[in-house]
Amino acid sequence: MSQQALHFDIVGVIESPYKEKFATPRQPNLVQDAHARIKIQPAYNKLEAFYGLESFSHIWLMFLFSQTADKGWKPLVRPPRLGGNNKLGVFATRSTFRPNPVGLSAVKLESISQENNQIYINVSGIDLIDNTPIIDIKPYITYSDSIPNATSSYAQDKQKGFDKVEIAPEIEAILEQDVHSLNFIKQTLIQDPRPAYKRNKPDEKVYGSELGAYNVKWQVKENTCYIINLVKL
Amino acid sequence: MSQQALHFDIVGVIESPYKEKFATPRQPNLVQDAHARIKIQPAYNKLEAFYGLESFSHIWLMFLFSQTADKGWKPLVRPPRLGGNNKLGVFATRSTFRPNPVGLSAVKLESISQENNQIYINVSGIDLIDNTPIIDIKPYITYSDSIPNATSSYAQDKQKGFDKVEIAPEIEAILEQDVHSLNFIKQTLIQDPRPAYKRNKPDEKVYGSELGAYNVKWQVKENTCYIINLVKL
Repeated sequence: MSQQALHFDIVGVIESPYKEKFATPRQPNLVQDAHARIKIQPAYNKLEAFYGLESFSHIWLMFLFSQTADKGWKPLVRPPRLGGNNKLGVFATRSTFRPNPVGLSAVKLESISQENNQIYINVSGIDLIDNTPIIDIKPYITYSDSIPNATSSYAQDKQKGFDKVEIAPEIEAILEQDVHSLNFIKQTLIQDPRPAYKRNKPDEKVYGSELGAYNVKWQVKENTCYIINLVKL
Repeated sequence: MSQQALHFDIVGVIESPYKEKFATPRQPNLVQDAHARIKIQPAYNKLEAFYGLESFSHIWLMFLFSQTADKGWKPLVRPPRLGGNNKLGVFATRSTFRPNPVGLSAVKLESISQENNQIYINVSGIDLIDNTPIIDIKPYITYSDSIPNATSSYAQDKQKGFDKVEIAPEIEAILEQDVHSLNFIKQTLIQDPRPAYKRNKPDEKVYGSELGAYNVKWQVKENTCYIINLVKL
């Protein structure tokens, strides 16, 4: 039974505003304005296969950790939440270095659209990097999937991010016509994407994040994130 | 990217009291006394790989629909919840006939045990048939996985089962020393495992269900389930 090759097929590929691991949220639903769409592969590009899905507010995405899939698994990993100092068993984490490199995210379903016969599943609150392959889409069944009183060890609550994100008016003006990108950038940065060991220490580094159509530079002072530059890509 | 063969490995195999599809709950957490254990495969039989998992109350099981995996997928399926009359897109359902035959269940984690060097993950509230292959175990992260206000179309609430399950004292006596099995059988049958078209109609059929160590025969009258025979296997 073990070591069996199971043939899995890619159902779709996500088009996401997150282009790299840095600054991509570590769980879904942290950045409401993180919009993305799944481009359905030709074999599944049939509207009937999605008939009825729009009556669900949320969906599960099962996806491949395509950036780390060829690196194999480790029995022990260092969850970022624990500052990178403590090791836990890989099955006690959502680490990408697992026996089968499959991830799981519940995201908001915005709509299903069709352009020139190509179906897109439009979602928000995503934590997936651009081009991540999706292997399944399932409806979120609230009565069995939602367990509000479950206890989740070190990940019980959202990680505390920055207190606020500040942006000078002249920089914000670049986004005047693009409120959605402004919200998306602010919501993403307020999570504090830095490695955990940088927290609660003086940090003068200038960070750069490619977020959607913008290259954003930012610095940290007293747990506030200051956006110091913004360039349209 | 499509049609790519992805090599997946079996992490463990579940030992479940449900031996066949009939009477197996259609979602997890419906039958609290449905206890099972996952026997970890040799390649992953290392306690360290599970270190820290016991601090989570619930876990995700990703598993293969091994009984239907060779039957392929269908764009449209008939969810049992809709009485078998209405078709929905496969991605709007948890049907087993999907492009990648992978299922997803959140179950209660009871304990992790070791017997003669073999690791078992003990769980409850399961909806998996005996021998189902598990391909991943992930901790349930309450703040991102639990979305209590999500709306779930036709599956918003649990399906209404029988009003009660009755068992004659002389039959119940067979289980006198086995309260757990009694609870498990009653909780399973009260879901009403019959096909949806049998509901709310006169039904004189004698049903047989193999539940754990027992073969149970039952009949229905006015939305009560009567256990009429119980034989230890």
